[in-house]
Formats: sequence, structure tokens, C-alpha cells
Amino acid sequence: MYPKLKLSKKGAYLFLKGGLWIPRDCILEFSKAKAELEPGSLVKILSPESHFLGIGYFNPEVYYCLKVLTKEDVLIDKKFFVERFKRCLELRKEFYKERVFRLVFAEGDYLPGLIVDVFESVVVIQSHTKGIENLLRVIIEAIEEVLNPNAVVLKNDHSKRSEEGLKSYVKVVKGEVKDPLCIEIDEIKFLVPILSGQKTGFFLDQRENRRFVARFSKDKVVIDAFCYTGGFGFYALKAGAKRVFFLDRSSFALELVEEGLKLNRFSGGIVVEGDVFNNLRQFTRSDLVVVDPPAFIKTKKAFKEGIKKYKRLYQIATSVVEKGCVLGCSCSSFLSLETLKDIVSTSALSQGKNVSVIYQFKHPLDHPINTWVPETEYLKAVMVYLF
Amino acid sequence: MYPKLKLSKKGAYLFLKGGLWIPRDCILEFSKAKAELEPGSLVKILSPESHFLGIGYFNPEVYYCLKVLTKEDVLIDKKFFVERFKRCLELRKEFYKERVFRLVFAEGDYLPGLIVDVFESVVVIQSHTKGIENLLRVIIEAIEEVLNPNAVVLKNDHSKRSEEGLKSYVKVVKGEVKDPLCIEIDEIKFLVPILSGQKTGFFLDQRENRRFVARFSKDKVVIDAFCYTGGFGFYALKAGAKRVFFLDRSSFALELVEEGLKLNRFSGGIVVEGDVFNNLRQFTRSDLVVVDPPAFIKTKKAFKEGIKKYKRLYQIATSVVEKGCVLGCSCSSFLSLETLKDIVSTSALSQGKNVSVIYQFKHPLDHPINTWVPETEYLKAVMVYLF
Repeated sequence: MYPKLKLSKKGAYLFLKGGLWIPRDCILEFSKAKAELEPGSLVKILSPESHFLGIGYFNPEVYYCLKVLTKEDVLIDKKFFVERFKRCLELRKEFYKERVFRLVFAEGDYLPGLIVDVFESVVVIQSHTKGIENLLRVIIEAIEEVLNPNAVVLKNDHSKRSEEGLKSYVKVVKGEVKDPLCIEIDEIKFLVPILSGQKTGFFLDQRENRRFVARFSKDKVVIDAFCYTGGFGFYALKAGAKRVFFLDRSSFALELVEEGLKLNRFSGGIVVEGDVFNNLRQFTRSDLVVVDPPAFIKTKKAFKEGIKKYKRLYQIATSVVEKGCVLGCSCSSFLSLETLKDIVSTSALSQGKNVSVIYQFKHPLDHPINTWVPETEYLKAVMVYLF
Repeated sequence: MYPKLKLSKKGAYLFLKGGLWIPRDCILEFSKAKAELEPGSLVKILSPESHFLGIGYFNPEVYYCLKVLTKEDVLIDKKFFVERFKRCLELRKEFYKERVFRLVFAEGDYLPGLIVDVFESVVVIQSHTKGIENLLRVIIEAIEEVLNPNAVVLKNDHSKRSEEGLKSYVKVVKGEVKDPLCIEIDEIKFLVPILSGQKTGFFLDQRENRRFVARFSKDKVVIDAFCYTGGFGFYALKAGAKRVFFLDRSSFALELVEEGLKLNRFSGGIVVEGDVFNNLRQFTRSDLVVVDPPAFIKTKKAFKEGIKKYKRLYQIATSVVEKGCVLGCSCSSFLSLETLKDIVSTSALSQGKNVSVIYQFKHPLDHPINTWVPETEYLKAVMVYLF
């Protein structure tokens, strides 16, 4: 079947402890494997004593060169993915009434390197690794069998692909895709720029946080900072917000917000083009400020500078609320929930405000976390009530 | 007005950094203060340079002898509490449609030592400190003004009261109280043993977690372990669970479960009297196991033994689910969410199961957290999906 790859004792220990990412120094005869195996090859993972451990894929070009797919001795074929996707679908169907969710969240679903988002009849796939890229044909076939979508898109333009020796591209591999696509969640219409937008076109990961924001929005003045296509603000308007300011520097995103406001027949939404750091301060007397910035800490090296930036941001965000709430988010896996809570709280304290932390949340269920790959836990949200 | 209490530099720093608990060694002339001030006295808090900092109460008998109530120079009278309670009520009313919530969660609401739970027209007050005990008269008056309840209960039987030199008692100070009281949340009836039950009679802190459990309950076989009066199981039945086993060793609690099942006209609920550690193992092929144990770590010293107990418990809980979910809870402030996640996940891994963490939650909004008193953050919940 697959070529064999033997782990060192440390590597086998890592594997048995639940790890899905095995680094180079845990592979026995790494140089030999590097010379013999094509990047992205499927391999049979063995213990130092040659006992079978699992199946994974190998790319010697990256530090975590071996990623684990299964602990069973099976073929990684269409059938394998059909079974996995069915299981993923079963879980999502329990929790969501709409056919809109992340079907596969890489390590959290034991499929490192693979993201699959479902937007009703359109499926968007992202492959982040050479190993997954090699398997895309069977993955697409399995998606077709399990979901029977009208369209399938490969949105393979993630910056991390280059590390794996992969090119960036966007390709519709089945059917036709409207761009933007109109989807509906919780009776709200959203325009999703599948082909031209960020990531897969829509940030599904904020669904539970948006619902929480809606619970505090009735009759409120709300700022949706870094609004992108307006997720939080639309939930606030649906819940009866008096006014929502959508703040973003992307005119592309704000045009979609404008269209979305019309589609939903929302009144009270106002788009403001501008940088959040420069423009948020003007919205004094807000009742609720939602701050969902891009990741400021993308690498370990960027930690210190990133922290400064978060501090500066939440200093501004907490300054525009006299009595009310701030939802602070971070999608840096390097920033812990505790640190985010501390930054947001301390920002408000330094302005003489009292701070009650009324909400803390990490990932929604369609972005499950793998306990042994803490890097997958990127999203954190904290809501503070200031008075 | 109030006698003055001067902080050391360290104490003033603690205060300005947001701390609400000031220890003995941060009080200047502690012995003099101890000799002169009655335990529980209200004091004016001063910096080493005699600048006004705030108002708090002082009890030299406990290590954290000074607790802060406000940074403003005001009288701690009925008016003070009326304003505070109104603000607390305003926040809860935004989020909850029923008049059932924790109105005051001590430090989280900047009122150390005071708990107020509202069960429709009945209010249950707990005072945990001598300072609050001294203020109970004005607190009750303020509650009457803000909530106009039919009944007010002092449920002052918490074990920690003895440290403050307080006696244990339960007293109805206004009106009459039905015991158990029938309340309704999310269209489910609950029987609350206000006078005879644990704490204030009902664990309001699990509301959001119960709602999450409901989302996975339809057609499922659910175990509600440490069920007490049945909160989780009732939500599961309401959501259409096929069968719910209510497991607890308290016949008192299980009688209330039985009554509650009838009141709600639920079918499919089965009560099982027994110790969870001994009895949970028999429920093989469960789809969902909810484990909400009492705190196993009540002091720092008990950490190691407590951890062992949690590990043993979650080893059993994850063993009875082949494919499905386990909700693991802990109400020990000494156990972090990360450690709980690790314990639950590792228990499942050791049985050869795959584990996706699909939910992590801390406190609901009516149990707000004070960032600078981490001890207040006691509740953690993790749901894992096993396959």
C-alpha cells in the first residue's frame, strides 16, 4: 500500500498522546524519506518497533512534515472521505437548521489541511497542504456524493500555501457560482463574495457571537467595527437596533453591506468608510461596540507588536461607551482568551470605568478544536459591560 | 462619615489596578484598625498620601480584610443599593425574557459578598461577609423598592460564613414562600427548593449550557449525571430526547425530578438513585452524557486529589459514549477551562476515541466575572464530540 515512515520514540509518544502534527526531528531517517518520497505522499506511520500507528501525509518541505489522517489501516480514497464527511455533516445537522456551516475544520475534524464550507447549494473547499492538494480529486468526488451541491469552488489562495510549495488559485470545478452569493442564516440575508472575498467569502465562525450581540441590540446604537460584509451589524438590526454604523476601510465590503441592507429592508444602517483606529473614536455615546479585527499576531515574532495594537484598539473601543457593552474579538491563535479579557478590561479600567465580563466564547461547534493541536484554537471573544 | 483606612503603596497599587480584595499586609497600621474597628465596618479607603480612593468594608478576621464597594465618595445606604440594583436589573432584562436570574453576583457586579437571585416574585439573598450582613436591612429595603417582590428570603447557610464569624440561618423576611417553588424558564417548569435545597435552590448558572445541550438532544438517549433537580435533563426532554436518565444520590432531589416530569408532562424521563462514580458505567450506548459534579477542588490543598477525582469521573463518562457527546462541567475556581478540556479530551483519547471539542463556555451573563478577582470565575463547561 503506502510507503512506510518510521517515527522516533518521541514521535511515537507524540502520536499516541493525540498529536496530529509530527515534526521533522521525530522521523527516523528523515533524509532518506525526504529523498525518496514526493512531497505530499501518503504514508503508513510506524512506531520505532515497526508497529502500525496510522496513515498520514508527508511533506519534507515544512517543519511539521507529517500530518496524521487516521489511526486505522485504511485506504485514503473516496470512501474514506465519504465516511468522514457524512460524520461531519451529521454533527452539523444536529445543531443548525440551515445548510450553512463549515463542514470540515481541518484538525478539529481530524482532516489536517482541509477546510470545507457549505453555503446552501455551493461548497467552497480550501486545501492548505500538499498532502490535501494531492487528494483533491477524491475529496471533490466525496463532496459530490455526500452533499450533491450545485457548485463546487476551490478557493486556494491562502498565503500559507506557498510554504507547502503550492500555488495560489481560485477555480470553480463544478457548476456556476453567483458572486456575491445570497444566503440566509437566522432569517437574515447575507451576500457572500465567494470568488472575490476574503477566505471562503463569509466568516461562519462568528455565528454564535452574532447571536449573542443580537440579544443586547434592541433600541441600541451599535458600531460594527471591521464590519467586512456586515455580519454583526445585520444581526443587531434584525434584533431592533436603533442605529448601526458599519465601519470598514474596504469599499468593496461596504458596497455589499449597502446591498445587504436593501435586501433585508433594514433601516438604521449607516456605512462609514475608514480605518477603525482613526475613525472609531468619533462614535461617542455608543451602546454597543463590536470589534472584530483581523489577526494582529500572525507569527510568534509579531507577538509584542501585536499586543500593542490590540491594546491601542481596545483603548479606543472602550472609550466610546459610557454605559454599555464592548465585544472584543481576536482571531490570533497566539493570543489567549485570558489575555484578550485582560486587555479589554484594563483598557476600560484605565478610563475609570467599572467592568463586568458578561460573555466569553471560543469556537462554534462547526469549528471544532483539536485539544492536541492548540494552534487550531484561533478565535476568542469577550463581552464586557461598562458602567 | 466613615472611619478612614489607609493602604500601603502595594495596597494602593492593587486598588488602582482594579482589585476589590485587599489583604491584611496592604493595610497601614493594620493592628490599630483591628483594635478600633468593629468587624464589617464601612471604611473610607485612602492612599498612603491620604487621597480618597473609595469606600469598602473591613473585617480583620479574614485575610482579605478589606473589600471595595465603590470608587465614589458616597454613603452606602438604601439609595446606593437602589442604584446598583437598578443597573443590574437593566442588564439582565436586556438578555432574559423571564424574571428569573441572578440579579447580583458579588464581585462581578462590584458588590463583594452579596448574591441576589430572582425567581419571579421571590427574591433570595445570600450574604457571605460580615460587611454585607451589617447592611442587610438597607439591602432588603432597596430590593423591595427595585423589584417589589412577594417574598424575600435570606438563605444564609453558606459554609464560608463561619470564616467571617457569621452564623448559619435561613429566614423568610417578607411574605410567604412555597417550598418548592414552581418557576418557568424557556417554557419549562422547574421546582425550586428555596428553603430546603442547595445554595439558593436552583443553579441559574447553567442556563446557557442547558440551552446548548437541548440543541443536541432530539431523539437522543441522554444521561444527566449529578442531575440535582433535573435542569439539564428537562431541557433535553423539552427538545425531544428519546430517553433521559436522571442520576443522583439524593432522593430529595430525585423526588423533585419526578414531580417536575409530571408537571411538564414529559415522557421518557427515568430517575436513578445512586452514586455517579458507581452507577454511570452501566449506561452504555448513550448519545449524550451531561456531567455537572459538585466542586472537587474547594481549596488549593485539595488540588491534586481533586484532579484525580475529575479524571476518574471523565474516564467513566467518556467510556459510555461510542459516538456522541459528553458535556463536562466543573465549578471549582481552581480548575481552569484548559485543564478541564485536557482532562475530558485525554479520557476519551485513552479509550482510542477521536475527540472534537465543539463547545467551551464559562459564565452566563447574570454571573459576570470581575477580571481582577479571578476567584469569581468558577464555572467551566466543555462539550466534546466522540467518534
